[in-house]
Amino acid sequence: MQIAKVRGTVVSTHKDPSLTGVKFLLVQFVDEEGRLLPSYEVAADSVGAGVDEWVLVSRGSAARQVLRSEQRPVDAAVVAIIDTVSVDNRSLYSKRDQDR
Amino acid sequence: MQIAKVRGTVVSTHKDPSLTGVKFLLVQFVDEEGRLLPSYEVAADSVGAGVDEWVLVSRGSAARQVLRSEQRPVDAAVVAIIDTVSVDNRSLYSKRDQDR
Amino acid sequence: MQIAKVRGTVVSTHKDPSLTGVKFLLVQFVDEEGRLLPSYEVAADSVGAGVDEWVLVSRGSAARQVLRSEQRPVDAAVVAIIDTVSVDNRSLYSKRDQDR
Amino acid sequence: MQIAKVRGTVVSTHKDPSLTGVKFLLVQFVDEEGRLLPSYEVAADSVGAGVDEWVLVSRGSAARQVLRSEQRPVDAAVVAIIDTVSVDNRSLYSKRDQDR
Amino acid sequence: MQIAKVRGTVVSTHKDPSLTGVKFLLVQFVDEEGRLLPSYEVAADSVGAGVDEWVLVSRGSAARQVLRSEQRPVDAAVVAIIDTVSVDNRSLYSKRDQDR
Repeated sequence: MQIAKVRGTVVSTHKDPSLTGVKFLLVQFVDEEGRLLPSYEVAADSVGAGVDEWVLVSRGSAARQVLRSEQRPVDAAVVAIIDTVSVDNRSLYSKRDQDR
Repeated sequence: MQIAKVRGTVVSTHKDPSLTGVKFLLVQFVDEEGRLLPSYEVAADSVGAGVDEWVLVSRGSAARQVLRSEQRPVDAAVVAIIDTVSVDNRSLYSKRDQDR
Repeated sequence: MQIAKVRGTVVSTHKDPSLTGVKFLLVQFVDEEGRLLPSYEVAADSVGAGVDEWVLVSRGSAARQVLRSEQRPVDAAVVAIIDTVSVDNRSLYSKRDQDR
Repeated sequence: MQIAKVRGTVVSTHKDPSLTGVKFLLVQFVDEEGRLLPSYEVAADSVGAGVDEWVLVSRGSAARQVLRSEQRPVDAAVVAIIDTVSVDNRSLYSKRDQDR
Repeated sequence: MQIAKVRGTVVSTHKDPSLTGVKFLLVQFVDEEGRLLPSYEVAADSVGAGVDEWVLVSRGSAARQVLRSEQRPVDAAVVAIIDTVSVDNRSLYSKRDQDR
């Protein structure tokens, strides 16, 4: 999985019928030092993530393991809202600090 | 999924038999600020996207989740025509503006 | 799928038994302006493509959707010989011109 | 598989229900000369790897072949703790030396 | 598939139980002109490849199509030992010349 920050949304009315009701988030990847990378993904959201939150994104066939997505043509999904990231025993990110 | 702009078409008569009737679009990827990237995909189209429209492209096994593509050797599909893309609560793209 | 130009062949006698009889083409990727990229793939051929032809290459599990490849350990396949590529309503490639 | 060094952990309470109990390690990739690369993965751990250990990381659908992960939306897993890496008959890494 | 040169081995005793008995080769990728690339893979070997040989490497779910690997968490496998590579009708590599 990659760490990403929710940046926005993508809306479509004309799409594969199986995608009806799926929320698409535009998430931008974050590197191992917490900086935004010039690389993003449009991911199906099933955990209710909001703008600016850090999330875990699964890509490939893993994205279809999310409940009710088994037969949807999605190749990326937000699978978790991150509470904390620790690297070398130091805190890189904490949702609690972010929410203050 | 990645955001891409439809740029053209690819035509082939001599191909895997299962690909008969599949329309191939050449789509060029767009970055998170709306600029064209030097990277493209030839994607099977099932939503009737036209040149210059922005679309969502699914890659990998997800492309075979589109109806009737289950056993086709395709690794990319246009799965949605995009209406709007919003980043940081600003509009990055709106099909309505584009269509004027 | 990616557009690629057939550049050569790879031959192996000592291989996974399921690969007996499979023809391996070395294909080099082409960018959206028709230039060769410094990136290639060795792809199983089932459409009879020849050197210098432009082809569509499918990668990942899609390569195993080709008839009789379902259980072969191949991750790339030539799935179509390209007739024409059009970008922005201009012709980027035409097999007929190439064959003259 | 890629060689990676365990750098830290990612914690999430709000996630896909199937991910309950899964430990997420932040692992940073190592190149063929043993140097850290600017690229990481958040991988599900089932072998009990600890910070600073070198591990093998499998990505894609392979990550779901780990026991009890078959239906989890994970696209990366730590599948082995590395004892030794040898390149050109020289030792690149030895866990025993590292543990001293 | 990608062309790679066998450079070394990776040994692990503490790993996913299904990986017992699997030999891991460190293979370094080769470009379309025969030069080593700064990119490698640790691949399961089932064809008995040796150091310095050129091989074909399959990645992704294809790696699990090798006999007895169907349920192993491997995402790369050596599937063939290469005899010859020809590009533009010239020989890029010949195992026979190499073995002299």
